Amino acid sequence: MKTFLTAALIVFGIALATTIGRAQAVASTAPTAPAADGPAYGSSGALLRPGDYREWVFLTSGLGVNYGPATAAASTQPKDFKTVFVNRESYRQFLQSGVWPEKTIFMLEGRQAMEDPAIAEGGRKQGPVQFLEAAVKDSARFPGLTWAYFSFDSPQGLTASANRLPDSANCYACHRTNTAVEQTFVQFYPTLFDVARQKGTIKPGYDAGRRIQ
Amino acid sequence: MKTFLTAALIVFGIALATTIGRAQAVASTAPTAPAADGPAYGSSGALLRPGDYREWVFLTSGLGVNYGPATAAASTQPKDFKTVFVNRESYRQFLQSGVWPEKTIFMLEGRQAMEDPAIAEGGRKQGPVQFLEAAVKDSARFPGLTWAYFSFDSPQGLTASANRLPDSANCYACHRTNTAVEQTFVQFYPTLFDVARQKGTIKPGYDAGRRIQ
Repeated sequence: MKTFLTAALIVFGIALATTIGRAQAVASTAPTAPAADGPAYGSSGALLRPGDYREWVFLTSGLGVNYGPATAAASTQPKDFKTVFVNRESYRQFLQSGVWPEKTIFMLEGRQAMEDPAIAEGGRKQGPVQFLEAAVKDSARFPGLTWAYFSFDSPQGLTASANRLPDSANCYACHRTNTAVEQTFVQFYPTLFDVARQKGTIKPGYDAGRRIQ
Repeated sequence: MKTFLTAALIVFGIALATTIGRAQAVASTAPTAPAADGPAYGSSGALLRPGDYREWVFLTSGLGVNYGPATAAASTQPKDFKTVFVNRESYRQFLQSGVWPEKTIFMLEGRQAMEDPAIAEGGRKQGPVQFLEAAVKDSARFPGLTWAYFSFDSPQGLTASANRLPDSANCYACHRTNTAVEQTFVQFYPTLFDVARQKGTIKPGYDAGRRIQ
């Protein structure tokens, strides 16, 4: 009987240790590998505009959400929907870890917020594209920055590729200062903010009440 | 020389015929097969709530867009974002044909439109889920209807499965009357409305100026 109890306790101990090991593995915040479906670059090194980003994972769509300098703040009638997409593999890694892997790419699509005679007064539907921007995480390609920002806008319409915006562009400072997780606005992604909270990857200095300037 | 010209004209003719054949194939509005990533049903026949719909293809997110009876019309401060997702395979078939294949499933997710001290006055971000509904195309399962509607809402939160709503539910009449393509609100999906226009699948009676009741 004593032998049986000892054996049972050993088996229980192994099972317990395995369970704890698994729990620690799940709680790890280290992504396993760079995303394979990340950004592509042309021969000149410019980021190629992804043709299929609307088939990536949708993160959120906000109306009049001001990501940059106070372009929207001057009006109480917001003029645009900003919709955010991320490459599929990075999304899945974020669900596991609360961290964006290397080669993560976000697309930020701005569309006109249109009234429509068919819908209720005050309602807004998404109209034509107004701008298209990208954020890429690549610490080897962008040393000292890790995240770089790109705009595909031009007076002639969307460009096929884009060089990264200069360090003086507002994106860099705004994303460093106002974001909840790394340099990303996870506070506006309703399902992912909970993931970051559970994984403990919200930045210690994040202040939900601070107005984005 | 005459032989050469004749041969060249024959080759050109074959190439032209092939091109026209291809163009006709592309213009065809008949989807090839039911979607393989469509709806799943439990043993009782109820539609199972998809766990991964936020990884499907995003179609649009509107603010205060009134899909049903005039719940939003009474207020000029819309309270919800309605976001629409569709299964990936049906999306790809729609791009080719302008028609939804059998076994298409749409998810309609309602989220609270929240103000946030961090964003500009008048801006709205997506908050907690308020409701979750589905539309399924299955003419064999729903004879005489083709499209059926489901609600996963309950006082205790979202349900794991749902039986189809009764014929008296407003969804059926509203989707028959107010939609641009089949029984779907493609007029609110900014990229797909152009596809439907090009493929000629907008319903002849569709009136963009008619207020949805």
